[in-house]
Amino acid sequence: MEVITVRTNRQTELVDITDQVARLVSGVKSGICYLYCPHTTAGLVINEGADPAVAEDVISVLNHFVPWKFGYKHLEGNSPAHVKACLTGPGTFVFVEDGRLKLGTWQRIFFAEYDGPRTRKVYVKVVPD
Amino acid sequence: MEVITVRTNRQTELVDITDQVARLVSGVKSGICYLYCPHTTAGLVINEGADPAVAEDVISVLNHFVPWKFGYKHLEGNSPAHVKACLTGPGTFVFVEDGRLKLGTWQRIFFAEYDGPRTRKVYVKVVPD
Amino acid sequence: MEVITVRTNRQTELVDITDQVARLVSGVKSGICYLYCPHTTAGLVINEGADPAVAEDVISVLNHFVPWKFGYKHLEGNSPAHVKACLTGPGTFVFVEDGRLKLGTWQRIFFAEYDGPRTRKVYVKVVPD
Repeated sequence: MEVITVRTNRQTELVDITDQVARLVSGVKSGICYLYCPHTTAGLVINEGADPAVAEDVISVLNHFVPWKFGYKHLEGNSPAHVKACLTGPGTFVFVEDGRLKLGTWQRIFFAEYDGPRTRKVYVKVVPD
Repeated sequence: MEVITVRTNRQTELVDITDQVARLVSGVKSGICYLYCPHTTAGLVINEGADPAVAEDVISVLNHFVPWKFGYKHLEGNSPAHVKACLTGPGTFVFVEDGRLKLGTWQRIFFAEYDGPRTRKVYVKVVPD
Repeated sequence: MEVITVRTNRQTELVDITDQVARLVSGVKSGICYLYCPHTTAGLVINEGADPAVAEDVISVLNHFVPWKFGYKHLEGNSPAHVKACLTGPGTFVFVEDGRLKLGTWQRIFFAEYDGPRTRKVYVKVVPD
């Protein structure tokens, strides 16, 4: 298992980590690359990376429909971040072929920060066929 | 890795692809079937297929709470589709036993179209134990 | 494949099943533990377990933005549960190292009940490297 470190800069944002992940699969002919976020106020999202506006729109809508104020019972003030983490999930995977991630043409892998800025970790495991 | 082709007919809909996936696992005694959607405005959903009204309700609610108009920054007009794709995710898996998908009694596998109609692909990898 | 049985007590709640899952990975030096919910009105969520208020907040917000009344076409009355199941997904995984789940410090594994109370099942498969 490898660990990627991600530095986030805003309270909520999507940080493109595709290149860091891609380096871990070079040399693997065929297999699956598993990604896991061990945090409860962050997650992993795979979506368009060509136009950075898409990532901003995704974060904007999440911030819109998960209310900042709601009579939350958890007193640390970051319940919206926990909810967003539950919606997008902690784990994802991408197939690997010929040393490359089999992402779609427009797909990039993002670390989804919902309670930053912080220094975060992503666990990565590459399992060859 | 196998590739399934899916033809969608509406802007947003869930298309049942269970039979196409099931054919790829016949002959596998025990293992895991991984499904991956390489598109950024579509995804994969596993839910009830017995009553088609469930799939319609799921799409209706997604279309209700991801706003069509929102001051999106991405100018292609399909930001709601990107958001839905982030919520339901690109990848999922089902266990395989005795050549059959170990789905629950009411579960079916759906291709979730959020920006159709289009011709789409699903990557499938079956890993025996 | 192992099967965990979960008894839920409310219509919607998160039930911590981490200890039941942990027992199935003891003895595994390194690998991946896959969890799968075969129900269409329930799911699996990994999030904070230290303060039980977080799980309550997550359920409260899901119940808030997936409307109870909406002109649903499915006549069993549990369409909101199907929608929530689609949002949080049926499957997840956790890495295993030295016989222990590699969860983050605050992470616990929850069975997400959206149409209870019921007796439910979770399929578990542990694949060593």
